[in-house]
Amino acid sequence: MATAANSVAHQTLIKLDPFVLAEKQKGVHNRWHPDIPAFVTVKPGEVFKIQCVDWTGAQIGNNDYADDVRDVDLSKCHNLSGPIAVEGAEPGDCLVLDILDVNYFEKMPWGYSGIFELENGGGLFAREFNSRAAKAIWDLKGVYATSRHIPGVRFAGVTHPGIIGTAPSAELLAKWNKRETGLIAQHPNAMPAVAFPPDPKGVYVGQDVPQELRDKIAREGARTIPAREHGGNCDIKNLSKGSRCYLPVFVPGANFSVGDLHFSQGDGEMAFCGAIEMAGIVTFSASIIKGGVEKFALKQPIFLPSPVDPQYASQIVFEGISVDLHGDGKQYNMDATVAYKQAALNCMAYLQKLGYTREQAYLLLTAAPVESHVGAVVDSPNACVTLGLPTAIFEHDVLPRPEGLTKRDFGQCAIRSDGVI
Amino acid sequence: MATAANSVAHQTLIKLDPFVLAEKQKGVHNRWHPDIPAFVTVKPGEVFKIQCVDWTGAQIGNNDYADDVRDVDLSKCHNLSGPIAVEGAEPGDCLVLDILDVNYFEKMPWGYSGIFELENGGGLFAREFNSRAAKAIWDLKGVYATSRHIPGVRFAGVTHPGIIGTAPSAELLAKWNKRETGLIAQHPNAMPAVAFPPDPKGVYVGQDVPQELRDKIAREGARTIPAREHGGNCDIKNLSKGSRCYLPVFVPGANFSVGDLHFSQGDGEMAFCGAIEMAGIVTFSASIIKGGVEKFALKQPIFLPSPVDPQYASQIVFEGISVDLHGDGKQYNMDATVAYKQAALNCMAYLQKLGYTREQAYLLLTAAPVESHVGAVVDSPNACVTLGLPTAIFEHDVLPRPEGLTKRDFGQCAIRSDGVI
Amino acid sequence: MATAANSVAHQTLIKLDPFVLAEKQKGVHNRWHPDIPAFVTVKPGEVFKIQCVDWTGAQIGNNDYADDVRDVDLSKCHNLSGPIAVEGAEPGDCLVLDILDVNYFEKMPWGYSGIFELENGGGLFAREFNSRAAKAIWDLKGVYATSRHIPGVRFAGVTHPGIIGTAPSAELLAKWNKRETGLIAQHPNAMPAVAFPPDPKGVYVGQDVPQELRDKIAREGARTIPAREHGGNCDIKNLSKGSRCYLPVFVPGANFSVGDLHFSQGDGEMAFCGAIEMAGIVTFSASIIKGGVEKFALKQPIFLPSPVDPQYASQIVFEGISVDLHGDGKQYNMDATVAYKQAALNCMAYLQKLGYTREQAYLLLTAAPVESHVGAVVDSPNACVTLGLPTAIFEHDVLPRPEGLTKRDFGQCAIRSDGVI
Amino acid sequence: MATAANSVAHQTLIKLDPFVLAEKQKGVHNRWHPDIPAFVTVKPGEVFKIQCVDWTGAQIGNNDYADDVRDVDLSKCHNLSGPIAVEGAEPGDCLVLDILDVNYFEKMPWGYSGIFELENGGGLFAREFNSRAAKAIWDLKGVYATSRHIPGVRFAGVTHPGIIGTAPSAELLAKWNKRETGLIAQHPNAMPAVAFPPDPKGVYVGQDVPQELRDKIAREGARTIPAREHGGNCDIKNLSKGSRCYLPVFVPGANFSVGDLHFSQGDGEMAFCGAIEMAGIVTFSASIIKGGVEKFALKQPIFLPSPVDPQYASQIVFEGISVDLHGDGKQYNMDATVAYKQAALNCMAYLQKLGYTREQAYLLLTAAPVESHVGAVVDSPNACVTLGLPTAIFEHDVLPRPEGLTKRDFGQCAIRSDGVI
Repeated sequence: MATAANSVAHQTLIKLDPFVLAEKQKGVHNRWHPDIPAFVTVKPGEVFKIQCVDWTGAQIGNNDYADDVRDVDLSKCHNLSGPIAVEGAEPGDCLVLDILDVNYFEKMPWGYSGIFELENGGGLFAREFNSRAAKAIWDLKGVYATSRHIPGVRFAGVTHPGIIGTAPSAELLAKWNKRETGLIAQHPNAMPAVAFPPDPKGVYVGQDVPQELRDKIAREGARTIPAREHGGNCDIKNLSKGSRCYLPVFVPGANFSVGDLHFSQGDGEMAFCGAIEMAGIVTFSASIIKGGVEKFALKQPIFLPSPVDPQYASQIVFEGISVDLHGDGKQYNMDATVAYKQAALNCMAYLQKLGYTREQAYLLLTAAPVESHVGAVVDSPNACVTLGLPTAIFEHDVLPRPEGLTKRDFGQCAIRSDGVI
Repeated sequence: MATAANSVAHQTLIKLDPFVLAEKQKGVHNRWHPDIPAFVTVKPGEVFKIQCVDWTGAQIGNNDYADDVRDVDLSKCHNLSGPIAVEGAEPGDCLVLDILDVNYFEKMPWGYSGIFELENGGGLFAREFNSRAAKAIWDLKGVYATSRHIPGVRFAGVTHPGIIGTAPSAELLAKWNKRETGLIAQHPNAMPAVAFPPDPKGVYVGQDVPQELRDKIAREGARTIPAREHGGNCDIKNLSKGSRCYLPVFVPGANFSVGDLHFSQGDGEMAFCGAIEMAGIVTFSASIIKGGVEKFALKQPIFLPSPVDPQYASQIVFEGISVDLHGDGKQYNMDATVAYKQAALNCMAYLQKLGYTREQAYLLLTAAPVESHVGAVVDSPNACVTLGLPTAIFEHDVLPRPEGLTKRDFGQCAIRSDGVI
Repeated sequence: MATAANSVAHQTLIKLDPFVLAEKQKGVHNRWHPDIPAFVTVKPGEVFKIQCVDWTGAQIGNNDYADDVRDVDLSKCHNLSGPIAVEGAEPGDCLVLDILDVNYFEKMPWGYSGIFELENGGGLFAREFNSRAAKAIWDLKGVYATSRHIPGVRFAGVTHPGIIGTAPSAELLAKWNKRETGLIAQHPNAMPAVAFPPDPKGVYVGQDVPQELRDKIAREGARTIPAREHGGNCDIKNLSKGSRCYLPVFVPGANFSVGDLHFSQGDGEMAFCGAIEMAGIVTFSASIIKGGVEKFALKQPIFLPSPVDPQYASQIVFEGISVDLHGDGKQYNMDATVAYKQAALNCMAYLQKLGYTREQAYLLLTAAPVESHVGAVVDSPNACVTLGLPTAIFEHDVLPRPEGLTKRDFGQCAIRSDGVI
Repeated sequence: MATAANSVAHQTLIKLDPFVLAEKQKGVHNRWHPDIPAFVTVKPGEVFKIQCVDWTGAQIGNNDYADDVRDVDLSKCHNLSGPIAVEGAEPGDCLVLDILDVNYFEKMPWGYSGIFELENGGGLFAREFNSRAAKAIWDLKGVYATSRHIPGVRFAGVTHPGIIGTAPSAELLAKWNKRETGLIAQHPNAMPAVAFPPDPKGVYVGQDVPQELRDKIAREGARTIPAREHGGNCDIKNLSKGSRCYLPVFVPGANFSVGDLHFSQGDGEMAFCGAIEMAGIVTFSASIIKGGVEKFALKQPIFLPSPVDPQYASQIVFEGISVDLHGDGKQYNMDATVAYKQAALNCMAYLQKLGYTREQAYLLLTAAPVESHVGAVVDSPNACVTLGLPTAIFEHDVLPRPEGLTKRDFGQCAIRSDGVI
């Protein structure tokens, strides 16, 4: 007979409350540093769960104004759960992480996508749009998301952690800080900033550590914004539940951390706060391949995608090239980022023909499972990038018909309470 | 009873010989210009076939040396079949093209992928690798390709025209030439060149036209290398047989042209001559949506992908970020092209662990149906791009196993007869 | 800020304990009858959760013997949660059910597959194999299942309710009982039985109802074994989380019930207790289409499959025809059931070459996401049915190589404690 | 340079004219018999082409009446190209056939689907519908088919040979004839017939052979209607171009034959002449695995499906159970054939709500890439089978919407010139 005695639940190793500010909780840190001690340790093969707050640490609410997005304190982001040590891991090994599941908290079945202000957070089109805060709240209903702020769509989430990474060694950390501060020095007054240097403001470690160590981490710790050699903030939508990833190990124990959970995201995550951001629970198992860095020439993580990623084969694909058509018509030199932006702008223009506002279109593309492929990056001077909009996520027909597109009224997403867009 | 009388073959409107230099054949041109007269005209709804030479116009042979690649005359590329006018098309309309099929010539069941010399053609890694000519000949066997120069792989082709585009208006042509010559002016001694200005050398029109017109086309005609607003050399692997594309019309009749057929290509087409280049036959039907440019906000082509694109779901995915790890460690600013290159280099390093040479790896990734997604382009300063290597194209196991990878001897691809690599 | 106040969890309308016998719990019934009162009522559009015990109601334990399978009391199966009424539903309407999610209980992360005894439960090969009890316990790890009793495989679940159905009207119930008792009369001594008549033994209603009504339900209530016009025990693996189903309504409120949750199942569910049986939670939302039975010619349910069903495209496909090759060589007349069985036997023979025992092979095919297509049922006298074995669920290579298959030792599944197989 | 000299076309080993009656051509036979000599011989690894007439041998015309279907001479079917011997093959080996491509003849870009008369050919619903001849002509346009007789649909073909099989040994042939004549004896007056015995009427061998041998083949040769252990008329839609199949070898050389090409077919091929029947060309390569029958427990063929089969993931799925609802309401005993028929009838009823006639619906389901899965065959007494109708093959919306389905006028398919339906 089935009994509690013959049933063993998977242990939750880090428990958090998604309604409490992250800085007040244990097991949450917000910088990468080799000296942050492992918060928990697991054995190879063990199945375990890690809870995560949302990336802002509960700063954003389920309401119909975007003031919280406008005022977000980014010095406290991202909030990572960990570090988690794996027994036996040593530098040069490969950490094999099975992302067995990613779920939202039962008590918090919602997430959000946000457009940040140009001066606070930015985003891919921050300058082009002179961005003001906006957001969409998404209701999470099992495998699906819908939004009262973007009516007419429903899609299955390709649910994943935006951030997963091993702790850097001291050498690697020094390299990161050197190259990134170098870039900042080249762009002294950039708006939005091109990169973010170590900054003691807002740092927390999530554990009781000596003050001296805390200060060192605050002073040297790498910011969590970019992806780097250890993984980090990859924001790869297909590093999703069901995938298996292979990460290089730089410190004893590997000491990996995880956070920035996304219920869904489009390729490119264009609005920066661009996925459906959520708090939730990740189920893992971990193992070690000795000497895996050398065995697989592992400069950066590799992964095997999941068999349960949503399938949206029917798409409208938009092309983009590295010419800024919408503005000054400038010719760029084989720049795939510009080409991606053009494809996205072309898609947004199409969505506006359907009746979505620019802000809704921007938020939709950042949250829905759109696919962006690098078409070609060799045909000088134009990189060509495509962006595929899945048609089955819409409740209405969106195909390009001879009679044109039907324009509907979808209202507007959540904006600032002062009405500024 | 089935009879010849009740069976009507689809008409071939442009007939070419893949073994004759393109410049000697009718219906082949190699520049974009509004004044090239339509070579043939079709009615909406009609099914018709267009034959194409390979993009070099028969310059490359099925042999085991890469001297022909080294010496290729690029002034004569690409060779396009057309222009093909569609009755009733006018500027502002949308040309709907069904790419119903793309096949190789029965008498020429092979294609090639090439690495060009740094000084003649280049390619994505021309500078990093100081590229010397190399090539792989692919045997085309129905839906599959194999190569004696890259043993151990077999894959189904995502067969497509690398180039498909409508004729530009005079205004659009002028805009192209202005912005591209501007870029050239900014990079005066670039190697490889950043762009290619109009150049009368090697121009042909494929028709008997007055000498004055021929001279005008030669003088002004846009080079065929990049993708542009009209389509052009998009090199999008999924613009394949079975897809439906929507192109803006700039001149009466639309006057579209097609060429640069690929039996297969990886996302990015990294080696420039990077697909499996082939001569062949495209089956089309065309229709017109009046005012389609306005209806669909059509700044550039959009398309609906094909239900018969090969499915290779099982992949090993490599991540890349916008840092040049392999060379100087330089930090780039949100540069997706660099991130793509890093992902590709990481994958090549993996393939070398399996026993492929760097040249074989480079040619394989450019030819096989690898998928490259833009992961994220908002996490300053690092763009993150992924490259997915399908595992089922290999005859042997290539997964990252605890015991490491098995290194086999796959010989080498075709190189120059003087042995220089 | 995210708060408990702005977060509303989806309500659980039926709460059950998977470790308590079903008959002792409220909201669980095990017969179909129009007079079972609705246990709960929901509004159209509402998201709600229903908990379910496993189909046997906790009779099977997580251990290494199959004695509990041998001794299972089938009179108490299946245990259904419900009935659940939907406001406004009337006979002739169509009930639209979104199966938003299906999960196992956190406290019970395991399931089982069983082979029943010939004389108690049977299964597709009960007679051919003279079946004795056997079972496999599956550990449920997020989206994946593995089994200590069938080593070497891991697969993502196509998680679904085996049973979902609306309450029959009195007329429909009478029709069912009449036609099924008629069949039983034609096969008086069949072993296993061909069908099951109403039987008061083991009946429960899950609610406090008058004894007279309880007796009526016990006397008339249709057994839950087969699928019928209302849905019922369809055991369709793709009626899974993320799917949307359309059910005919026969009584006011629709009064649907759900149960027999499967973490995974192969097409055909050949071992009868053949899926990975589990207790768990289903998340639903419901709506009504007035007059939907007429609008859609709805004789039986239809459904839209889920975009998150696991994708296992690479398969080895086995053919079967309606000839009993393995036994007497008898020729059947266009019998797709026989053809399915032959395909399954051919696949089991292949698995045995790999080292699995017959019992392991049988349990694997019933539990893993194998696909069975009706090839052709018009080529007299042989129906042709295929069964596709996904290759990516195996940790080792299972493809038919020139050197043959590698036979490994996988031990044996759980059998009876007396060792009888 | 590309030249004819360095390009070698794949050889066509059997050349046929699709407009000439099959019996007048060489290399076409229409019975299975071990003594039919190999018509051609190939070496392992060689790529070669085989031309095939359509299965009736040119009896059906591209016109708007079904009289030719009504009057078809089935004694002359199917017409098979071959036998083709493979060097080195011996009984007990496994013949590995790569179906590299399947195309229609350029000069005959059309095919047909037919409903046969109850008394001449039948079909799955011959009795239920008291079938009269009807047909649809399909225009083949590259990868797609459309029909003037079934407007509003367009789909990509899952192109395949309906028949592929090795020659039986004398023993196997004797076994077939014995078991099938036994079945016929049990159903002496069945209409349509349950099976077909050897019959000298209409036999041809496609080669000059001694009269004595010709008589023996005519007297003993197995009819080509059913699938059997050697493959034969499997009519499996996914045994398509790009697939690799493994066939048991029963005679020296294997002596396989191929025919009955289908541009497309639905699972089940319900109308018997149910695929899009066509004449065409198959491209093959063959190899041998010594002792493969024993190595793979090969009782019947197995195959690896193609990566280029059309993907139509979005479907409306219809359920069917083994109860004859539409007629007498009879309860069948776990009969998957009946369940398949019910699912098909439910789908046809839906299609009729959209405006298609019963004949159009029947022809569409037999020709389009519908998928039929065996849901469950263990839930006594009802087998449950599903039939999935792809939604993307329709030019209009066919989803079950709250407002019901839109009924359009699609005319009628081709029927008999006397107007009898």
